[in-house]
Amino acid sequence: MNTMQITTGRRVAGAGLNIVPFVSVDHMMKLVLAIGIERFLKDLAGYIEEDFRRWDVFDKKPRIGAHSAEGVIELMPTSDGELYGFKYVNGHPKNTRAGRQTVTAFGVLSNLGNGYPMLLSEMTILTALRTAATSALAARHLAREGADCMAIIGNGAQSEFQALAFKALLGIRKLRLFDLDAGATRKCARNLAGEGFEIVSCQSAQEAVLGADIITTVTADKQRATIVTDNMVGAGVHINAVGGDSPGKTELHRDILARADIFVEYTPQTRIEGEIQQLASDHPVTELWQVITGAAVGRRDRQQVTLFDSVGFAIEDFSALRYIRDQLARTGLYQGLDLLADPDDPRDLFGMLVRARNPAQHAAARA
Amino acid sequence: MNTMQITTGRRVAGAGLNIVPFVSVDHMMKLVLAIGIERFLKDLAGYIEEDFRRWDVFDKKPRIGAHSAEGVIELMPTSDGELYGFKYVNGHPKNTRAGRQTVTAFGVLSNLGNGYPMLLSEMTILTALRTAATSALAARHLAREGADCMAIIGNGAQSEFQALAFKALLGIRKLRLFDLDAGATRKCARNLAGEGFEIVSCQSAQEAVLGADIITTVTADKQRATIVTDNMVGAGVHINAVGGDSPGKTELHRDILARADIFVEYTPQTRIEGEIQQLASDHPVTELWQVITGAAVGRRDRQQVTLFDSVGFAIEDFSALRYIRDQLARTGLYQGLDLLADPDDPRDLFGMLVRARNPAQHAAARA
Repeated sequence: MNTMQITTGRRVAGAGLNIVPFVSVDHMMKLVLAIGIERFLKDLAGYIEEDFRRWDVFDKKPRIGAHSAEGVIELMPTSDGELYGFKYVNGHPKNTRAGRQTVTAFGVLSNLGNGYPMLLSEMTILTALRTAATSALAARHLAREGADCMAIIGNGAQSEFQALAFKALLGIRKLRLFDLDAGATRKCARNLAGEGFEIVSCQSAQEAVLGADIITTVTADKQRATIVTDNMVGAGVHINAVGGDSPGKTELHRDILARADIFVEYTPQTRIEGEIQQLASDHPVTELWQVITGAAVGRRDRQQVTLFDSVGFAIEDFSALRYIRDQLARTGLYQGLDLLADPDDPRDLFGMLVRARNPAQHAAARA
Repeated sequence: MNTMQITTGRRVAGAGLNIVPFVSVDHMMKLVLAIGIERFLKDLAGYIEEDFRRWDVFDKKPRIGAHSAEGVIELMPTSDGELYGFKYVNGHPKNTRAGRQTVTAFGVLSNLGNGYPMLLSEMTILTALRTAATSALAARHLAREGADCMAIIGNGAQSEFQALAFKALLGIRKLRLFDLDAGATRKCARNLAGEGFEIVSCQSAQEAVLGADIITTVTADKQRATIVTDNMVGAGVHINAVGGDSPGKTELHRDILARADIFVEYTPQTRIEGEIQQLASDHPVTELWQVITGAAVGRRDRQQVTLFDSVGFAIEDFSALRYIRDQLARTGLYQGLDLLADPDDPRDLFGMLVRARNPAQHAAARA
């Protein structure tokens, strides 16, 4: 035991069980850029696919929400029996008026066997990435082969991540953008310039869907909206419905849902939060993991309209935390956080505290 | 906008909405010592009492647990309609074999109205303090007036905190210590030397309770134990039962429960986790907040045996986080954590990310 350990009565920072790796927003950005956004999305989708393949081992709980007039704070825990993860996420649509994000998030990955956190990470950026990776993963199983053109309706914070995930996983090269706010479309087009897309900015949703193999809807208003109407959806299209993700918040006309084969993450949650809240509670849907494992058929033919009714599920966050955890040692893009008390003697929490009062005197007494 | 903001594309650390104050274990120890442990316990009990007085406004949920063969990880959320708090806490009895704590914890306090975290804090030390403060708060309402002698059975990590809380809130000066492990008793007596107690180390639980006005049981084994038997409890004693706090973990003989008037934090939780799991599910109990507000009677006379069946409730953690939050500005004992993404334009999360790729180029383009 060295002097520093004696004088503090605790293990040295960085070496001890008390230190939890923390990935800040700054480190997350550096990590994504170091790996490359498309590579990151592809690898992350691989982790999600791996976890969806072992769907049965996961402890699946509904989100635990705290609601107010302005929005909701949710905890999303899950576990595979060895690791435990949870995400804290808020949704407050009016936040942007005060310069705040509508959605912010952070998460923790722990060892279920001893309860110790192994990672604390920002998840605002990571959630955007995992949402896009999950969408592209679903589309890889559901969209027509050879799809190369995607409409993105809603060009806000999530839109660029969706575009790059579909490029990385499906080879989408043509984008048709539309947003009620032309400034959002300009921002999206500007951000994606140089990323290898052929981009068309459109004046209407109707124009945006022309010739698109895939329609991604990712608008933000909390209301029953009809971003896409039935006549806009041709045969063989895959719809990636991302924006409708909470009770009272939908984007598609009900008639589209009736025509489409619908795929979801976790049925009990999607019945409440997804587009299918507009349908009867026994309307048939297929869970994505079933398609991935081969237990259910995805796309049957080139005429079928498929719909991925995405709301975001805890297992995707778990996969994302697992992926980040696996990048720590190699990249060093984290800092050690003094989050857990770790006295030399676990029964002597109080002794650790009083020894911090006068470390010098304590060291002398022990010498 | 200054250069640093331009080059990073984000607000300056410490000044922005993206920065969350973090109280590490080190800062928590410094904070407790700066305030003084007894003063801290007294003030913290004041916050808990204040929140118990407005019991009705709180959103009361059961804990959300993830269980394994070795233990449990729990999330304990609550809200008063303005603030939101949750604690992450694990319980893994075998952890001490590998030098880990049985219980570690951390917590978050947030603004419910915008969902933004306002504080991330270690809670391993803070939980020990809030548990002791709650025990002493209950005893101030339930123990005989003039009580000055307390037996503490179980002299582990929680014992010294209990002793000091009872000194600070009730003026307890005489301690009678017992633990099956004599080393634990020596550790407890050594840690409390110089704190103004008259301490007697005892050879048995029977010896420890002699002449005690208050019996605190705070043992750690996860089993149905009988630390205190019926014949050991004289008329007028207040029992502060802290160690029995999960299914299958109790400390008192059933006959004591039948004789005592029982006070709990939140009945639905204590029926599952507390000493009263040994009793019928309709056995009468009184919630502590009712005594504090005067809605129910606490101690009726000097002969009555009272029992506080403590298991720990989310509102106490909420109060503790509130108390810590109120110390930040004055003491500066925290650091700013870059936990939340905060782009200049909330719709432009991706832009924040790509601008981090080449800050210099971005600054030049804007200039």
